Amino acid sequence: MSFQSTMTVTVGWGDCDPAGIVFYPNYFRWFDDASWRLFEAGGLPMDGMAKHYDMLGLPLVDARASFRAPCWRGDRLEIVSHVATWHRKTLDIEHRVMNGGELAVEGREVRFWGLPHPDRPGRLKAGEIPVEVKAQFGAVERKA
Amino acid sequence: MSFQSTMTVTVGWGDCDPAGIVFYPNYFRWFDDASWRLFEAGGLPMDGMAKHYDMLGLPLVDARASFRAPCWRGDRLEIVSHVATWHRKTLDIEHRVMNGGELAVEGREVRFWGLPHPDRPGRLKAGEIPVEVKAQFGAVERKA
Amino acid sequence: MSFQSTMTVTVGWGDCDPAGIVFYPNYFRWFDDASWRLFEAGGLPMDGMAKHYDMLGLPLVDARASFRAPCWRGDRLEIVSHVATWHRKTLDIEHRVMNGGELAVEGREVRFWGLPHPDRPGRLKAGEIPVEVKAQFGAVERKA
Amino acid sequence: MSFQSTMTVTVGWGDCDPAGIVFYPNYFRWFDDASWRLFEAGGLPMDGMAKHYDMLGLPLVDARASFRAPCWRGDRLEIVSHVATWHRKTLDIEHRVMNGGELAVEGREVRFWGLPHPDRPGRLKAGEIPVEVKAQFGAVERKA
Repeated sequence: MSFQSTMTVTVGWGDCDPAGIVFYPNYFRWFDDASWRLFEAGGLPMDGMAKHYDMLGLPLVDARASFRAPCWRGDRLEIVSHVATWHRKTLDIEHRVMNGGELAVEGREVRFWGLPHPDRPGRLKAGEIPVEVKAQFGAVERKA
Repeated sequence: MSFQSTMTVTVGWGDCDPAGIVFYPNYFRWFDDASWRLFEAGGLPMDGMAKHYDMLGLPLVDARASFRAPCWRGDRLEIVSHVATWHRKTLDIEHRVMNGGELAVEGREVRFWGLPHPDRPGRLKAGEIPVEVKAQFGAVERKA
Repeated sequence: MSFQSTMTVTVGWGDCDPAGIVFYPNYFRWFDDASWRLFEAGGLPMDGMAKHYDMLGLPLVDARASFRAPCWRGDRLEIVSHVATWHRKTLDIEHRVMNGGELAVEGREVRFWGLPHPDRPGRLKAGEIPVEVKAQFGAVERKA
Repeated sequence: MSFQSTMTVTVGWGDCDPAGIVFYPNYFRWFDDASWRLFEAGGLPMDGMAKHYDMLGLPLVDARASFRAPCWRGDRLEIVSHVATWHRKTLDIEHRVMNGGELAVEGREVRFWGLPHPDRPGRLKAGEIPVEVKAQFGAVERKA
């Protein structure tokens, strides 16, 4: 079992739509938050990583969610996140939203190791993920 | 070319994150809006459809986006949407976010024809999409 | 000191704007959430209250915030809420956002006791707040 | 009548809460957007102003809204904005949300002329609003 972190969210009134259930883009808002927390929990807070490696974060390549059951105001959700796969320049983060023991939503974000683009100011390009970043997660993994 | 609708969005300050680019969950917010408008443009506004067919909307099965280029505050986006595929009980809606002629984001929502669940109050089940709904889009298609 | 509840929020990346600070409408999103929690903490969860008194919630009359210091991603905010004044048909809820011991934002919501409007379907009208609701908060107050 | 700009918003499904009406923080999101557009319409786009005057924007001192009538999905709102009062270092922007000819929400933002704080990095301090900025709005005013 790889290292994972859990974020708890209590669904608010304003997170829900006129059908009374969570308006789906909010799950992606929570996924983004959960990814930041995953790296923090893994000992690699995004800000520190950016400074240390002169990179600019982990921008999205792709995001996806499958909705299995609706969630309602007041539901207490657990969002369980882990890096499913490390690629050379990208990584896949999986998020499972558990609602009272039931899997409500499955999400996946593909993010890349963001370096400043040499030629296009304001744009990023994907760089190689440092081996010690992967190892750090591996180290944590072994301890988990 | 199938029937499509276009929604214009000017990226606001509050749509963007500290990197200065659109915070990605906002694209899904716009996709949801674009889907409502697609059906309205196709002559089948969601509310009217719900009343006429005694259904409860088109809830999400799955949502996905691929991010090709960042968008910035003030960018004027065109979100071009169409039903890519009609299945028996579900449909695939494709959204392309164009930014100054460049494809910035590609999205896809899978939605189901939502009927009240006979046994589980507050839950929906997928029903067969009426042939005239598909035909209406087909009819519009031919006219477009 | 009257009964108060505290909600903790860790500022997320997506809560912040390109200046790197919390985009101000998010404070109101948190205030709404904090009001729900205040009533729940006071033993009068909004849903239960609605059912028991045949009312429809506590819609907003007025909302306001004063911004004293910006908050940043990762800041751990404490939102301290209490009913400042009970009027006949309305109540004033005060929210103080504390950030590391500093008062960052002061907010106030005026809400009314929402009854179904007798003549205008879908609209609400303000009704008298039951004395036992005020007393319940008073009772809690005395214990606090 | 002073210079004003109008922003049109069609209320989306995701802008509304389980009561079916606009979740109130969204009005503030629209107010922020409307303020950017007001300055752009007045010939002083925020970005250009920031560069030209070496300032950092118009951060909020205070924001407020009074809710007179609920708005629903599909409602086509007109948000009419103008600078109500220019002070030495701050300005008051008023926003009126019109829904089918009815005043639905009245809002007010107090913003300050944001200069980099000389002693506290990352903080801003209020500076004097340049006379030509006020004149520009005045000039526009006379033409309007």
